[in-house]
Amino acid sequence: MADKTDKNGPSCEEEKSALQLLSEQYAAPFEAYLTEFSENPNDAIPPRLTESMLYSLRAGGKRLRPALCLAAAERCGIHPEKALPMAMSIEFMHTASLIHDDLPCMDDDDYRRNSPTNHKVFGECLALLAGDALMIWSLGYSLSRLAHLGIPNDRVVRAVNILSEAAGPVGMCGGQVLDTDRESQEPEKEFVYRIAGAKTAALIRAALVSGAMLGDIPDTTLQCYHNYGTHLGLAFQIVDDILDVTATREELGKTPKKDEAQNKMTFVSAYGLDEAKRLALEESEKAERSLEQLFPEGDLLMDLARSLAFRGN
Amino acid sequence: MADKTDKNGPSCEEEKSALQLLSEQYAAPFEAYLTEFSENPNDAIPPRLTESMLYSLRAGGKRLRPALCLAAAERCGIHPEKALPMAMSIEFMHTASLIHDDLPCMDDDDYRRNSPTNHKVFGECLALLAGDALMIWSLGYSLSRLAHLGIPNDRVVRAVNILSEAAGPVGMCGGQVLDTDRESQEPEKEFVYRIAGAKTAALIRAALVSGAMLGDIPDTTLQCYHNYGTHLGLAFQIVDDILDVTATREELGKTPKKDEAQNKMTFVSAYGLDEAKRLALEESEKAERSLEQLFPEGDLLMDLARSLAFRGN
Repeated sequence: MADKTDKNGPSCEEEKSALQLLSEQYAAPFEAYLTEFSENPNDAIPPRLTESMLYSLRAGGKRLRPALCLAAAERCGIHPEKALPMAMSIEFMHTASLIHDDLPCMDDDDYRRNSPTNHKVFGECLALLAGDALMIWSLGYSLSRLAHLGIPNDRVVRAVNILSEAAGPVGMCGGQVLDTDRESQEPEKEFVYRIAGAKTAALIRAALVSGAMLGDIPDTTLQCYHNYGTHLGLAFQIVDDILDVTATREELGKTPKKDEAQNKMTFVSAYGLDEAKRLALEESEKAERSLEQLFPEGDLLMDLARSLAFRGN
Repeated sequence: MADKTDKNGPSCEEEKSALQLLSEQYAAPFEAYLTEFSENPNDAIPPRLTESMLYSLRAGGKRLRPALCLAAAERCGIHPEKALPMAMSIEFMHTASLIHDDLPCMDDDDYRRNSPTNHKVFGECLALLAGDALMIWSLGYSLSRLAHLGIPNDRVVRAVNILSEAAGPVGMCGGQVLDTDRESQEPEKEFVYRIAGAKTAALIRAALVSGAMLGDIPDTTLQCYHNYGTHLGLAFQIVDDILDVTATREELGKTPKKDEAQNKMTFVSAYGLDEAKRLALEESEKAERSLEQLFPEGDLLMDLARSLAFRGN
C-alpha cells in the first residue's frame, strides 16, 4: 500500500492486495458455496459422474471468473449472494472446457493445477461425459435458480444467453477451433488476437457482463463492463502465453512450454517475449480505463487489471 | 387404413401413416427451417466448425424429436412456427450427443446414418468441439429467439431449463455414464430401464414437454405429455435394442450388433428378444394411454406410439 505513486505500476504489495481483496471479498464466498454444493450431491446423478465433475471443480484455481461475476453484480446493485448461481454457471463452463482441453485428442495434458488431469484419473470416456454434463448443467443451473432469488426472468434470459454465446461456436469453442485447426490466411499478429478474443476473453467478459446484467443498469454501464472484460481477458491470455515460456512446472501447475512443443500460435511466438509483455500492460491499461467513467475515484477491478498484467513480469 | 379394427395393432399401412403424417406436418417444416439455417451460416463462427456442425445436423434422421416438440406445442396452442427455435435446440442437443457417442473413446463408430461419422471426416478434435459447440448453442438458441416470437420469458426459462435437465447429469449424460461405466449392483432387468430412462427417454420427453410448456396450459396437461414422453422414449430404446440384433447395416445406417460386441446391457440382453418385443408394445400402449384424457377421440401422437413399437417387428 506504500507505493501508490510509483509510475511503473503497482508494487508487489499492491499487486497482492488487488488479487487478495478480490479473493477475500468474492472468491472466498464462492468457494464456500461450491463446498456446500459439493457436500450435497444430487442423488439422481450417477455417483461416478458426480465424482468426476467434482474432482475438476474442486481442483482449485483462483476462481477468477466467478469472483469477477460477483464483483460486477455487486457494483450493479445485486448482492453477491443472489449472483452465486450465475458465478457457478461460469465456473461449470470454465471447468468443462479445461477437462475437454486436456483430453488426448486436444492438448493431451497429464497435469492441471499440479494434479493429474480428469481423464488420467477417470478415463477418457467419463472425462468427456463430465465435461458435457458440466457444459449443459452450466446453463440450466442459473435458469432454475435466479428467478427464485428475485432476479426478473427477462434478465435471467439475457444473462444466461450471454454465457451461451460466449462459450459456444462464436466464443470459446470457436476460439478452440481456431487454436487447434489452423487454416487461416490472416497475418499471425492479428490472428492471435482473434484466437485469444474468442478462446479466453469471451468467457471472462461474460463473467462480468452476465453478473452486471442481473442488476437494473443502463446499456452504457454494461458496455463499460463489456470493454473491461475484453481487455482484461486479452491481458490474461497474453500473460498466460508469457508464463508458458518463463514459468516452471510447479509455478504453472501444468506442463510448461506446451505451446511451443505443439507449435501453437501465441503472443510470444507472434510478437516475441518483450513485446508480449508490453502488450499485456497495454491491454491491462485499456481494461482499467474502461471503468474510469463508472469509478472516477478508482475501484478494485481497475487495480486488478494492472496487477494481472504484472503476473507475467 | 383398411384394417383399423385389427386387435394386434396397426397394419403396415396405418404404421406408415402415423409416421408419415408426423413427418409431413412437423418434420418437413422443421427440415425447411434447418435448410434455411444451414444456408445462412454465422460469419463469426470459424468456417471449419460450421462445416463440422452442419455435416452432422444435416446427416438426416427422421427428425423425430423436433417433430414431437412442434406437435406438442401446436396441441398446447402455440403455432409450430413459434416453436421452431425450441425444436432446433432439441435437435442441436441430440446431434451433439451423437457426435460425442461415436468418438473413439466412447462407442468408436465409423458410420452413422449410412455416412462416415463426424470424427472420421473432421478428426477427433474438431468433432469434440463441434459437439461442445452444439450443446452450448442448443440452450442459447432458444433463449435468444423465443421471446421475440412472443413467448413470455417465464415460459422460455422453464422450457429451456427442462432441456438442460434432460440432457445434463441427471438425464442424457448421466445415462451415458451408466451405459459405459457400469458399476451398479442393481439387477440387470431394472438397470436397463434406468439407463434407457436417462439416456434416451429424458430427451424425447423434454422435446414434448418443452414444446407443450411454450403454451399456457395447466400442470395436469403437462403431466400427460411428460408421461407420454417417458413411455414413448422407453419404447423407442427397446426397439433400438431389438433392431441392433435383427437389422442389417443398411437398414440401421450404422454397424449392427455393436451392443453385443461391446458387451452392453440392453433390453435384449436383459430380457431376451421375444420379451423385449412384448415390452416395447407395453410401453407404447402406456404412452398411448397417457394422452387418452386429453384426446378421448384419439390423436396422431397416440397412433405414433403404437406404430413406433412396430418398427421392431
